[in-house]
Amino acid sequence: MSHQPVPADKFSFGLWTVGWQGRDPFGEATRRALDPVETVHRLADLGAYGVTFHDDDLIPPGSGDLARETAVARFRQALDATGLVVPMATTNLFTHPVFKDGAFTANDRDVRRYALRKTLRNIDLAAALGARTYVAWGGREGAESGAAKDVRAALDRMKEAFDLLGQYVVEQGYDLRFAIEPKPNEPRGDILLPTVGHALAFIEQLERPELYGVNPEVGHEQMAGLNFPHGIAQALWADKLFHIDLNGQSGIKYDQDLRFGAGDLRSAFWLVDLLETAGYDGPRHFDFKPPRTEDLDGVWTSAAGCMRNYLLLRERAAAFRADPAVQDALHAARLDQLRRPTADDGLAGLLADPTAYESFDAEAAAARGMAFEHLDQLALEHLMGAV
Amino acid sequence: MSHQPVPADKFSFGLWTVGWQGRDPFGEATRRALDPVETVHRLADLGAYGVTFHDDDLIPPGSGDLARETAVARFRQALDATGLVVPMATTNLFTHPVFKDGAFTANDRDVRRYALRKTLRNIDLAAALGARTYVAWGGREGAESGAAKDVRAALDRMKEAFDLLGQYVVEQGYDLRFAIEPKPNEPRGDILLPTVGHALAFIEQLERPELYGVNPEVGHEQMAGLNFPHGIAQALWADKLFHIDLNGQSGIKYDQDLRFGAGDLRSAFWLVDLLETAGYDGPRHFDFKPPRTEDLDGVWTSAAGCMRNYLLLRERAAAFRADPAVQDALHAARLDQLRRPTADDGLAGLLADPTAYESFDAEAAAARGMAFEHLDQLALEHLMGAV
Amino acid sequence: MSHQPVPADKFSFGLWTVGWQGRDPFGEATRRALDPVETVHRLADLGAYGVTFHDDDLIPPGSGDLARETAVARFRQALDATGLVVPMATTNLFTHPVFKDGAFTANDRDVRRYALRKTLRNIDLAAALGARTYVAWGGREGAESGAAKDVRAALDRMKEAFDLLGQYVVEQGYDLRFAIEPKPNEPRGDILLPTVGHALAFIEQLERPELYGVNPEVGHEQMAGLNFPHGIAQALWADKLFHIDLNGQSGIKYDQDLRFGAGDLRSAFWLVDLLETAGYDGPRHFDFKPPRTEDLDGVWTSAAGCMRNYLLLRERAAAFRADPAVQDALHAARLDQLRRPTADDGLAGLLADPTAYESFDAEAAAARGMAFEHLDQLALEHLMGAV
Amino acid sequence: MSHQPVPADKFSFGLWTVGWQGRDPFGEATRRALDPVETVHRLADLGAYGVTFHDDDLIPPGSGDLARETAVARFRQALDATGLVVPMATTNLFTHPVFKDGAFTANDRDVRRYALRKTLRNIDLAAALGARTYVAWGGREGAESGAAKDVRAALDRMKEAFDLLGQYVVEQGYDLRFAIEPKPNEPRGDILLPTVGHALAFIEQLERPELYGVNPEVGHEQMAGLNFPHGIAQALWADKLFHIDLNGQSGIKYDQDLRFGAGDLRSAFWLVDLLETAGYDGPRHFDFKPPRTEDLDGVWTSAAGCMRNYLLLRERAAAFRADPAVQDALHAARLDQLRRPTADDGLAGLLADPTAYESFDAEAAAARGMAFEHLDQLALEHLMGAV
Repeated sequence: MSHQPVPADKFSFGLWTVGWQGRDPFGEATRRALDPVETVHRLADLGAYGVTFHDDDLIPPGSGDLARETAVARFRQALDATGLVVPMATTNLFTHPVFKDGAFTANDRDVRRYALRKTLRNIDLAAALGARTYVAWGGREGAESGAAKDVRAALDRMKEAFDLLGQYVVEQGYDLRFAIEPKPNEPRGDILLPTVGHALAFIEQLERPELYGVNPEVGHEQMAGLNFPHGIAQALWADKLFHIDLNGQSGIKYDQDLRFGAGDLRSAFWLVDLLETAGYDGPRHFDFKPPRTEDLDGVWTSAAGCMRNYLLLRERAAAFRADPAVQDALHAARLDQLRRPTADDGLAGLLADPTAYESFDAEAAAARGMAFEHLDQLALEHLMGAV
Repeated sequence: MSHQPVPADKFSFGLWTVGWQGRDPFGEATRRALDPVETVHRLADLGAYGVTFHDDDLIPPGSGDLARETAVARFRQALDATGLVVPMATTNLFTHPVFKDGAFTANDRDVRRYALRKTLRNIDLAAALGARTYVAWGGREGAESGAAKDVRAALDRMKEAFDLLGQYVVEQGYDLRFAIEPKPNEPRGDILLPTVGHALAFIEQLERPELYGVNPEVGHEQMAGLNFPHGIAQALWADKLFHIDLNGQSGIKYDQDLRFGAGDLRSAFWLVDLLETAGYDGPRHFDFKPPRTEDLDGVWTSAAGCMRNYLLLRERAAAFRADPAVQDALHAARLDQLRRPTADDGLAGLLADPTAYESFDAEAAAARGMAFEHLDQLALEHLMGAV
Repeated sequence: MSHQPVPADKFSFGLWTVGWQGRDPFGEATRRALDPVETVHRLADLGAYGVTFHDDDLIPPGSGDLARETAVARFRQALDATGLVVPMATTNLFTHPVFKDGAFTANDRDVRRYALRKTLRNIDLAAALGARTYVAWGGREGAESGAAKDVRAALDRMKEAFDLLGQYVVEQGYDLRFAIEPKPNEPRGDILLPTVGHALAFIEQLERPELYGVNPEVGHEQMAGLNFPHGIAQALWADKLFHIDLNGQSGIKYDQDLRFGAGDLRSAFWLVDLLETAGYDGPRHFDFKPPRTEDLDGVWTSAAGCMRNYLLLRERAAAFRADPAVQDALHAARLDQLRRPTADDGLAGLLADPTAYESFDAEAAAARGMAFEHLDQLALEHLMGAV
Repeated sequence: MSHQPVPADKFSFGLWTVGWQGRDPFGEATRRALDPVETVHRLADLGAYGVTFHDDDLIPPGSGDLARETAVARFRQALDATGLVVPMATTNLFTHPVFKDGAFTANDRDVRRYALRKTLRNIDLAAALGARTYVAWGGREGAESGAAKDVRAALDRMKEAFDLLGQYVVEQGYDLRFAIEPKPNEPRGDILLPTVGHALAFIEQLERPELYGVNPEVGHEQMAGLNFPHGIAQALWADKLFHIDLNGQSGIKYDQDLRFGAGDLRSAFWLVDLLETAGYDGPRHFDFKPPRTEDLDGVWTSAAGCMRNYLLLRERAAAFRADPAVQDALHAARLDQLRRPTADDGLAGLLADPTAYESFDAEAAAARGMAFEHLDQLALEHLMGAV
């Protein structure tokens, strides 16, 4: 298997990722701005398939109509020239100070209305550029102090906003679905819909739940100490994995946005194993920030590394699943039993079965080892290419 | 307002809480076992309203039918003598080694069947004792390594189990609802349904979602660094707060189960404020462990402290809400605007309103301070009784 | 006791705290810059005693000699006019992109030399303004990836830098000591000298250890989940608490710099109790960031809140210590025994004492409750003003 | 390079590791006890070099003199038969309820005396069995509430205890040094000397600092979110890495004690790289707990995995260091410059050098990329065996 990415691998990058200039809470930018056209060409050269954007990434805030049209036209031209597609777009509802208390759930009603209009405008552009997924990251929908936000009222406003967006997409006939991106904190002390679970639960309260899924980001779930592949599995189980943000994070701390493969490598292995075996066919979208220690050469090295690491892990995971020793180990660990219904005899059958309770020998059952350590060691050795 | 608890305050305790003998991963028990009858009387003396139990707390594992009947009869007698009620019961699916890989999602099918039967049996007892809520904490439904659990298959088994339990309760005509208790980890490396959000989302996939809600525990959400009152607000918003476990936790670490009020005091203040203003009328259930440094006197002191702290916080929160200066501050922070729909003029109205976008002065709007610090300072001073 | 701060309370603020404009990793500034002169006057009005600065806070980077002199002269004038003192100064070795890989431990030698010279220059100014403490926060001395930093070599360079700074201060005859400020991460993935402990240990390796102490910051230790008063106690025990940065943090996450009293209130209570009873007589320095939701009114409200909360906590802690019930509880918890030497009879005495081992009744000793819950409940009630 | 361990690899295991029966806070033992003699033989068969013990692991508490002698004699015989050595021993000061408030810092003076005598007794045995390192893990030296422990007094008692132990070893002429093992929490809410840094700092306050070093444990530092190799580097830099406990941990949560290689694999890679290149020649001691899902076969699989993973990582780290592309990348990242003194021209030279400040072009210097991403990608590929 080649480790050279090709469009069929469906790797995509946000303009804001390679384009991050390195401004952090304690330091100024270390890199110049990238022209979106330059980015498109570089990503295509590296083997990417798609490029994504926030409205303000593509069209500088405050642009007049002409500047806007020009920016879009230049971008389209680059897409056409390279064959890159725009699988997803999203709205910047966090950089401008007007969003300091959030957007869809800002206490100020006029800010909420502005946020919705800003989003609706960019949905038109997203649809025009062929995007099928519209991501919503509500990074400032939250609070630092207890009384500042009435969470139930804020969820009412969040629902209202998403219902309106769904109505718009349906009325316009756009072939576009929404992917909500959870995050527990940063830049707000606590953010609403902090995890994949909270977002999945929220979606069920919407008017058209079928239009909404999640866009989980590796680091965001790991900032809450959660097992990322477990969260992805629950999203897949609910048929709600509409998009995914791949990157790296070293545990519970500030949002690091390391390149994919950095941070928790074993979790990345299990993630790729899951995406590839579960039939996820959406983009593998990298939402990372090349460290501000890097110049532009380092930026492209880092972007290439994201893709290469995915391919390496895909190869290793496939070899793991194909290994007869692994298949034996999975059987020894009774993974096949887990796939079998617990009570295919129904409730009545279960209640009537003395072997299920009355004559069940719990001590004997307890004495059976699960053989998980052997299985996990095999996985580790496959990951390390030591098999 | 008195700080002496009375049954109308609806304070309840698990037998296993005050009865915890202090065995921890590195040490042996420091206290003798408590007889459930003794516990009932002591809790009643302290002003509690209810007592809850795992099957094995009340009936020693391995008891024959007679021992079981005697244990239940003695317990009933104590309830009758004291007036304490049993608002909730639950199953121990974690202490016996047979559950080392979980219960409803154990890889071994016979363990899953046994777990279901053990639960069904205790549901009968719960119903007989008048419980209206049946808590399910799946503390061992999880894994330490990636291949050991196929999470999607495990969620299928989890759904199967809860659907069967729901069917049973309906068929038996029991007036009993289930409350699922999330926890991110410990004793397993990662536990399925790790947060309130994941549990709420799972419930929507069940056959009879109306029968299931959540039983969030303060420390469990805080072990994932999540804002507990925010999670409770989302549960209330979804009408799914069926029960609650109150205790204390000092940040992201092992499960501490401190008495209520210990740990994050400000979060406890906002929690009580939320429960009292949102009309939650279920039990205020303390699921704590008196530190193993304490003898039995310390146990009862600790239990009394849980209730006293709730009452103190209830008083402080009420004073906060009643304070005219607070009402002014809430207005200054535009909490009233958050309660107003964003687009009561509908999507068409919003799109047609130039003040929402075209003529919106974002700079001017951004210049408005939110006045949250003043509001939060008032809250802090109310909490400290300094107003 | 009044809650109105006065200079004798020794409250100080950094120019960069109230002057923070609200730029965060995801958003632009929400507030205008403050003139240092304005800040000095406002702080004096609020009752502060001191003001502190980074070189670049006072003198805009790139200033020529004249601009520098003017800036310093205006600042001095404001100090004279208000009576505010400058107890501490520090260097900005993190904002300019040249420090993207650190300062004293940057891989680039010329950057290290520049960083030292920049520091030495500001030490002159610090001394000229009467500062007695020079804080060193090495926020970018660290790495995001394993090979990027040879930590032992970096510690050699760190030692070299501090030894040179110490030599300079001694040669110049400045009455100035250094306070090293630890932080575990952010803005680097991992920062060297991540906790109070690591900094204390490092100091012992320096040529003139007596010149160096620590400047612990509440939130920095809490970002590692550590008990802040415990760390302060160890610093006091080693006679190394040269300065302190007070603020608030809500658990393990990004650096929040909330106002003092926000975040973990109980920890703040124990901290004030410790500082006041241990005879710490340095400045109570607030290193916080008024949330970017606030306008300038909110900034000053937030600053005033820091001081008021310290005074409230000081009052509550004093009442706690003075309460006869607390004294009884401390005795019951055998705190007095902890102050007594374990073996005032020496090693020989201990070895010869059969009651220490041979006839020691461990079971009986184990049965004694520690009575900590009663003591802690008293503390909580004092904190809440409920006694 | 072979991945089959041999004694020259210096792998050692505690009796309590493979002997852990699987009792956790929520469950009973899942495995039978192991006879120390059986353990010694099994470890030798697997290729280990040493075995370590707590007093109570080898000699059941309450044993009379004869039972004690028999236990020791059988153990010696097994050592002789297998060639295994005892490089380290330690004291159990946490399992018995008498230690519920700690040992050397228990509030109760008689408990402190008993703890010292228990330790002294086992030091005799350690010396008799040839141990050169005596580990001290003060797992219960801490508190759950603020007033329960006067930390400065407790540090006085801790110092007193270690000074006495040092005096004893010197007086007895034992060739034995102490290694203090830090841990931030669990089983106490907060433990004294929570990190490697705090322990290193504490040691400097002892009467004979040369006798004391640290015994860092992978998971313990990671429970505080700290970079383990960084901590080890600081310990090595201070010449204080006397022993090391290798295991795995998945982030900030309860103490997992996974097998070495599980958890954070990249950190394990950098750790092995550091130990092997820094000339650490002490035992590679595994302090892990085979998950309670495993039977005894799984226990030995898990133990073998610890050693195999160390060897695999050692091989990968050596290949990384030997790779010319890596050497180029290290040069490009200016690691060689970091090893060069910053001011070999001394303070005067630095001050007199205009290129260091006056004519230093910070903008040009800032524009240089650090090339860390390329270097880190090479490391990742070496770890994965993909080079």
